[in-house]
Amino acid sequence: MEQQQLLKLLQNVAQQTLTPEAAIESLSKDNFEELNYAKIDTARVRRTGYPEVIYGAGKTAEQISGIIKVMKGHQKAILATRVEQDKATAVLQELPSLKYDAVSQTLTTVDEKTASVGNIAIVTAGTSDIRIAEEAAVTAEIFGNHVTRIYDVGVAGIHRLFAKIDVIRQANVVIVIAGMEGALPSVVGGLVDHPVIAVPTSVGYGSNLGGMTPLLTMLNSCAAGISVVNIDNGFGAAYNASMINRLIDKGHI
Amino acid sequence: MEQQQLLKLLQNVAQQTLTPEAAIESLSKDNFEELNYAKIDTARVRRTGYPEVIYGAGKTAEQISGIIKVMKGHQKAILATRVEQDKATAVLQELPSLKYDAVSQTLTTVDEKTASVGNIAIVTAGTSDIRIAEEAAVTAEIFGNHVTRIYDVGVAGIHRLFAKIDVIRQANVVIVIAGMEGALPSVVGGLVDHPVIAVPTSVGYGSNLGGMTPLLTMLNSCAAGISVVNIDNGFGAAYNASMINRLIDKGHI
Amino acid sequence: MEQQQLLKLLQNVAQQTLTPEAAIESLSKDNFEELNYAKIDTARVRRTGYPEVIYGAGKTAEQISGIIKVMKGHQKAILATRVEQDKATAVLQELPSLKYDAVSQTLTTVDEKTASVGNIAIVTAGTSDIRIAEEAAVTAEIFGNHVTRIYDVGVAGIHRLFAKIDVIRQANVVIVIAGMEGALPSVVGGLVDHPVIAVPTSVGYGSNLGGMTPLLTMLNSCAAGISVVNIDNGFGAAYNASMINRLIDKGHI
Amino acid sequence: MEQQQLLKLLQNVAQQTLTPEAAIESLSKDNFEELNYAKIDTARVRRTGYPEVIYGAGKTAEQISGIIKVMKGHQKAILATRVEQDKATAVLQELPSLKYDAVSQTLTTVDEKTASVGNIAIVTAGTSDIRIAEEAAVTAEIFGNHVTRIYDVGVAGIHRLFAKIDVIRQANVVIVIAGMEGALPSVVGGLVDHPVIAVPTSVGYGSNLGGMTPLLTMLNSCAAGISVVNIDNGFGAAYNASMINRLIDKGHI
Amino acid sequence: MEQQQLLKLLQNVAQQTLTPEAAIESLSKDNFEELNYAKIDTARVRRTGYPEVIYGAGKTAEQISGIIKVMKGHQKAILATRVEQDKATAVLQELPSLKYDAVSQTLTTVDEKTASVGNIAIVTAGTSDIRIAEEAAVTAEIFGNHVTRIYDVGVAGIHRLFAKIDVIRQANVVIVIAGMEGALPSVVGGLVDHPVIAVPTSVGYGSNLGGMTPLLTMLNSCAAGISVVNIDNGFGAAYNASMINRLIDKGHI
Amino acid sequence: MEQQQLLKLLQNVAQQTLTPEAAIESLSKDNFEELNYAKIDTARVRRTGYPEVIYGAGKTAEQISGIIKVMKGHQKAILATRVEQDKATAVLQELPSLKYDAVSQTLTTVDEKTASVGNIAIVTAGTSDIRIAEEAAVTAEIFGNHVTRIYDVGVAGIHRLFAKIDVIRQANVVIVIAGMEGALPSVVGGLVDHPVIAVPTSVGYGSNLGGMTPLLTMLNSCAAGISVVNIDNGFGAAYNASMINRLIDKGHI
Amino acid sequence: MEQQQLLKLLQNVAQQTLTPEAAIESLSKDNFEELNYAKIDTARVRRTGYPEVIYGAGKTAEQISGIIKVMKGHQKAILATRVEQDKATAVLQELPSLKYDAVSQTLTTVDEKTASVGNIAIVTAGTSDIRIAEEAAVTAEIFGNHVTRIYDVGVAGIHRLFAKIDVIRQANVVIVIAGMEGALPSVVGGLVDHPVIAVPTSVGYGSNLGGMTPLLTMLNSCAAGISVVNIDNGFGAAYNASMINRLIDKGHI
Amino acid sequence: MEQQQLLKLLQNVAQQTLTPEAAIESLSKDNFEELNYAKIDTARVRRTGYPEVIYGAGKTAEQISGIIKVMKGHQKAILATRVEQDKATAVLQELPSLKYDAVSQTLTTVDEKTASVGNIAIVTAGTSDIRIAEEAAVTAEIFGNHVTRIYDVGVAGIHRLFAKIDVIRQANVVIVIAGMEGALPSVVGGLVDHPVIAVPTSVGYGSNLGGMTPLLTMLNSCAAGISVVNIDNGFGAAYNASMINRLIDKGHI
Repeated sequence: MEQQQLLKLLQNVAQQTLTPEAAIESLSKDNFEELNYAKIDTARVRRTGYPEVIYGAGKTAEQISGIIKVMKGHQKAILATRVEQDKATAVLQELPSLKYDAVSQTLTTVDEKTASVGNIAIVTAGTSDIRIAEEAAVTAEIFGNHVTRIYDVGVAGIHRLFAKIDVIRQANVVIVIAGMEGALPSVVGGLVDHPVIAVPTSVGYGSNLGGMTPLLTMLNSCAAGISVVNIDNGFGAAYNASMINRLIDKGHI
Repeated sequence: MEQQQLLKLLQNVAQQTLTPEAAIESLSKDNFEELNYAKIDTARVRRTGYPEVIYGAGKTAEQISGIIKVMKGHQKAILATRVEQDKATAVLQELPSLKYDAVSQTLTTVDEKTASVGNIAIVTAGTSDIRIAEEAAVTAEIFGNHVTRIYDVGVAGIHRLFAKIDVIRQANVVIVIAGMEGALPSVVGGLVDHPVIAVPTSVGYGSNLGGMTPLLTMLNSCAAGISVVNIDNGFGAAYNASMINRLIDKGHI
Repeated sequence: MEQQQLLKLLQNVAQQTLTPEAAIESLSKDNFEELNYAKIDTARVRRTGYPEVIYGAGKTAEQISGIIKVMKGHQKAILATRVEQDKATAVLQELPSLKYDAVSQTLTTVDEKTASVGNIAIVTAGTSDIRIAEEAAVTAEIFGNHVTRIYDVGVAGIHRLFAKIDVIRQANVVIVIAGMEGALPSVVGGLVDHPVIAVPTSVGYGSNLGGMTPLLTMLNSCAAGISVVNIDNGFGAAYNASMINRLIDKGHI
Repeated sequence: MEQQQLLKLLQNVAQQTLTPEAAIESLSKDNFEELNYAKIDTARVRRTGYPEVIYGAGKTAEQISGIIKVMKGHQKAILATRVEQDKATAVLQELPSLKYDAVSQTLTTVDEKTASVGNIAIVTAGTSDIRIAEEAAVTAEIFGNHVTRIYDVGVAGIHRLFAKIDVIRQANVVIVIAGMEGALPSVVGGLVDHPVIAVPTSVGYGSNLGGMTPLLTMLNSCAAGISVVNIDNGFGAAYNASMINRLIDKGHI
Repeated sequence: MEQQQLLKLLQNVAQQTLTPEAAIESLSKDNFEELNYAKIDTARVRRTGYPEVIYGAGKTAEQISGIIKVMKGHQKAILATRVEQDKATAVLQELPSLKYDAVSQTLTTVDEKTASVGNIAIVTAGTSDIRIAEEAAVTAEIFGNHVTRIYDVGVAGIHRLFAKIDVIRQANVVIVIAGMEGALPSVVGGLVDHPVIAVPTSVGYGSNLGGMTPLLTMLNSCAAGISVVNIDNGFGAAYNASMINRLIDKGHI
Repeated sequence: MEQQQLLKLLQNVAQQTLTPEAAIESLSKDNFEELNYAKIDTARVRRTGYPEVIYGAGKTAEQISGIIKVMKGHQKAILATRVEQDKATAVLQELPSLKYDAVSQTLTTVDEKTASVGNIAIVTAGTSDIRIAEEAAVTAEIFGNHVTRIYDVGVAGIHRLFAKIDVIRQANVVIVIAGMEGALPSVVGGLVDHPVIAVPTSVGYGSNLGGMTPLLTMLNSCAAGISVVNIDNGFGAAYNASMINRLIDKGHI
Repeated sequence: MEQQQLLKLLQNVAQQTLTPEAAIESLSKDNFEELNYAKIDTARVRRTGYPEVIYGAGKTAEQISGIIKVMKGHQKAILATRVEQDKATAVLQELPSLKYDAVSQTLTTVDEKTASVGNIAIVTAGTSDIRIAEEAAVTAEIFGNHVTRIYDVGVAGIHRLFAKIDVIRQANVVIVIAGMEGALPSVVGGLVDHPVIAVPTSVGYGSNLGGMTPLLTMLNSCAAGISVVNIDNGFGAAYNASMINRLIDKGHI
Repeated sequence: MEQQQLLKLLQNVAQQTLTPEAAIESLSKDNFEELNYAKIDTARVRRTGYPEVIYGAGKTAEQISGIIKVMKGHQKAILATRVEQDKATAVLQELPSLKYDAVSQTLTTVDEKTASVGNIAIVTAGTSDIRIAEEAAVTAEIFGNHVTRIYDVGVAGIHRLFAKIDVIRQANVVIVIAGMEGALPSVVGGLVDHPVIAVPTSVGYGSNLGGMTPLLTMLNSCAAGISVVNIDNGFGAAYNASMINRLIDKGHI
């Protein structure tokens, strides 16, 4: 409960423009809508500047459709991640105006392109990391960011990275995505002067341990300026990068 | 090797203002200075916008002193982290102009206070997390950031957090530091619209596993907008936050 | 072997109302029934106040049916958990009077509703935790407890929890179910003055580690008054909560 | 923020008996007191029925003394756990009315004995588990519970447990404490019809893994009615047991 | 290379009844037969008293058949473990005289029953542990041991174990098989004066960790006289028990 | 509670040679003696054929002395393991007739040598494993077994093992003790036809993980006939080996 | 960027035989070719002496075909590993001149046999390790090495290894492949005076942990001269062995 | 037992120049010398081309001295690793001709410098890795290799590595030593065409996990040509590198 909001409300009550009961009502109202299986956080845009996003894994197609229908009354951009092909097909029959991208497994609204700001570079170590990179890219784009993709520049052939380093340096924020041993963020972090968000992927085998190895590598990076999100969490990296990119674009808040 | 730099150099060679050998020389020169036990990255300020920092753990007092002496020729601000009391005493005898802070275990230069910009909030869950918070605070301050400290507002008494939430929301970036189960960043992340950098600490016992438990908690946070650094890595969090804070302060780069 | 029971028995023997051999017989008899593949603990109601429950995973439909048939001679309420759809179908052909619930994967007797006592609140962090919550709810109800469901009030939108906190506070015991990072029990534990039983779920990805992350989070909670059961163990939580709820309802034992 | 409290406050504001600013003030006031290094949750008794407790590990003697002095203005019973001998000595010089118990490493107020209610049985598997058992016992007693101690009845000589089972069954709640392989709670859980709270201890060697082995054993117990707290967390177990014991004692809430 | 054998051979060479080359030949010969994909240890009976056994997992039906055909020239009893139904069907078409047991997943020779010696008790905690118990039972029987089966006597209803304890005590060796938390061997170990071999099974869920939890429990047992084999390794337990049982049966070697 | 014992008792009661109350009394009596901090299992010799042993770690010198004094009334041989030098010194002042061995950290009674039976071979991979080997040797000897020591025959120089293999083969049971990678039991297990008990030690560094690596190696051994005890558990291995050795010595039980 | 290359380039620029822009161009050109989903490191042969290899897992058949087509312009030998049967079939329709080997899951060019040099011994512990061994063998052969295969000589029947030890000793490098407990490399390492490269495999069950157990075993080997590659990484072992074998064959570089 | 040796021996026996018993004798003799606590593998030089080395950790100064005295009769070069300062002082009093190096913690013979061959590059990521690097360097030098040291060229300032890459490329074998995240070997492996041996160190904090993180990083390296040894195992890396270096130096064996 924020003191700012509360003070205003109390003043209204003091000025008798609001009954105590209506004040209570207004406090809870408009904050979330209640479905049988979900409480949709409709106050989220106001509170954090970003609309709520649907994490599709573990939800049925019916639940996803139901949630999107409620959301549409509160926010313009819709994003659902981790939606498998068959669920997407079912949702699209209900909501044919949405767009499904099979690589990133995302369902989004197809807005006439809003002007995007700033610049986020999305860099991958290998070809197999692209599906996570695209989850990040779609997320960043729907939140209004300009995205630059640089794929397959891992450290085993480091000249490929150097050939692209000037492009990477022009971005406000850099997302670096790598599986296997996850060494790429350390090298990038030593070469750029902007924040680097590292995303470990579950690409690899043997002692890769489902992505735990690159996760640990990235957390222990000897290069400063790197922070890390969960394994395969392209969405989270893009959400973070978007926050930073847009704040930089706006200047001092 | 950056193409920008290289092109300029090649043009000088083409214009005969530089011999090929001198070009090679100038490429390596000024990039690092070589001690017996260390290669000091003197090009770092130019390359990443930040001076090199000394990680004191595992280095002798002699090595720390030696590295600082070289650094002083290349950068104004000196920061050494993880310097234990006895090492600090030895370094201070050699370099009495430095200042040692026993809580954060840092050695720094005592500059006439430079004007600091922006605002970084540093929030801890408990009293025992303060030593990591101070490592972050000292780091952020020496890099020219304004810092706001909010300590001991963990989720077991969540009204303490709500009483401070407006102060936290005024910051450009929020560093949240927690041991035990590490739940605080998830709650803060759901309440603010700016980037949150989470720092797990090794505070706790039993199945805390030396900080692995809050680390995992933070990586799996259901709140978006959170990224994570290594256990007890107050320095890394502040370095990241400083990058973001200063970019926001400057506006579009 | 309890001294109370033993003394009575010995007195009967001393009074020659029972031969030594019959005493031995009566000690083992009525304590369990022996099938080829199972020894059914028919003394359980008498010993612990609760009937034996069938853990369906790893048992064939034939074994489940066989065990239920024996149990029916000893106890009124039947509960089988972790029964997959196809096994349930097979069991229902043998025992059509049972009821199968596909969400909670439980088979139960359909008694004319017995009056239920007390109140157990079952709270989930997300939509995907509902299947575990329903296992808990069905268990609690068949054991004669009143249940209140509060679903999808995770910490990323904490105002949803606050809107429901008064309802939660009216319960004797609170079961809190969460996957991802598992932070919800810590917050609830700090707000209520009744016992909280935390259930980690295997909902999540990456470093969630099949539920180990929320399990560790809950064990390390900085809020007192929380105890924890195994990952996805909705049954166990409800069993515990039921014991507490009914003891409170009865007052001092 | 609870709706009950809020409604009352709003009514006062509406009735002009309280200015909006004073309302804000009164909301935060009395909720915590702010020291330099801690925010003491003085509203805790009112909110959860239990006073705040000091976790002594990682705090200096000065911080412990400082916090106790503040607390004394708000609550009668003081409990500090994990206070090592030398810290305790320093605190006792400042606050000589406290009592230190070296086995349980607790500092407490020495009240004229308040009448204690109900009954909590504290059972250990071995002699080495006693220090954790005493932390639990001291905690339970200061919170006004009657405690019965049954020590060293581990499963390797299970007749020792059977000789004490009738005493254990008379308790409202049973705390079972075990290191090594942690099998005791499973056996006790199968013999009693009251809630069992299991506490794994770090007693053992080799693959005991600092208590992780008995922790996992207890979480996977095949006996229902068992919940678990963190390794060596005698305090947490007693806090839980106390909540349950006192609710049972009072009957329906 | 054993000195006994070598001395005899050297004496033959010294007595010119064997050329050096023939000696070398005879040393390697008869020790194993070489297939394309396997070297069958035909000297094993002589060396360890037990014939080689086929571990079926990871081998094709053709490889299993091929190996059995070679073995049949060297040993009477054939045992193949971990043979899935479809592989078994294929092998039986080639070798119809073998017998397949679907519960234990074993292929064996059907000898006219040889007289079996001694007594091995095989005890399980639950119904789901039976498949591992039967792997142990089939193995022990084909190696000529008498087997007594006692299934489903886990610690949650410990009176079931006590009712069978006299039968268990009559065995030379006791194999105890348990999943979940694996507490049964500790209890049995405290009650019998013969060696106990504990077998953890992967039966369980959540933090059972595929059997690692009961494995750790058993290794840390507070009862002496227990040794442990790998998770689900019914064969290994029976092999061990057979060695001990037959040595006891024979008396001092 | 055994049916044999119970029947006899019941017959006495039936024959009025025993009152019911005296029967109860006699059932618990003589089974354990109760100290403040321990319940000494004095029925253990009768029940398992072996006296109770004191695990010294985590007990004070006073507790060790106190327990030994009670034990002396019930059993001839006393064995306390894991007793550090300073504790031993304190115990010896109280009980000067005991003998302390600093390598194995054991306190024992110095009996006129009883005739020992059978033969247990104790084999180590390296020099650093000797302290665990001696714990095993002292244990085996006090339980009346003949012991043969073969130290430092690890697989890196496997000819050392072959030179001793005939001696090893003459034992009834073989204890193999190894740290580092723990490969020795697999090799020994393939060469002998008697039971092998493997003891992993915490000798090693890096990814040895405090003995977890040799523990896992031994559990996964491709050689049958090997069972495993906990890391550094020389006592447990010897206890097991003693049971087997003495049963073999006696022949069919 | 290497100084050798750079100097030559700078001299050309100085001599005006190259414009600065063309120099930049030539630096990046010929170093990699850019597809939509991959940057093929065509400079690899020149830089490391070995052509780039395709890791097939996680790539589509289209991507594999596309990359091979580009590679064919730059290198003679093509090797793709981890290509499953169905992907291989699709690639072969596009590129029918390639050869697929189903055991090793490799796609290769079928060159008229080039003369191979040196000798690499590939040794496996069991039959199930052969698929990894063949990945190593195919890799070594396409890189121009002579290969000797010795399969199924694990330590449980160590005489099989001794019978082959002279053949193994004739190789320049030995690759030892083992699952289960992974003890074979330690034994081989103690018997040969050439480098041993150990490959753990995921063959095993229970606490084998997907190959982590033999991996740890090999890293902790008490025999010197052993280095280790990732679980199931036959390709990596062969690549290493090939480097060493060919350098030895050429003599001092 | 090698067939070559055996054939010669058998021929001697056949020619009556050796009795069978003397043959047995000669087989075991000269292969190792037996101390009370160790069996020194004096045949090692003959068998593997390298003398035995003493691993000092876990041995007393007396044991180290004793072993060295025996070794001196069989080999010229003595190397003891992991010898702490105080043990070294004690050994040097007995054996004053040895030399102790405190950084690498090695005791060695001080031979008039033998001509060293080939070239091994030892590369570290940081200053704190030097103690492991020196263990490697001392080992390589006493085994007759030429060593080139390149310290502190980690990936956070990758231009330092590029400035030294030509020197590194001139070595036959490269040892790369790194703690923290361990990314350096991947980068080096992509730039050189000779074998790279990676050594993870326990340098780091938080989730470095005592070196497990760089170990996993190195095993998962996306660059081929890298093999790995145990954490902090400078000796093992040097032993491997020496084997390769000297074989290359000699050319085809």
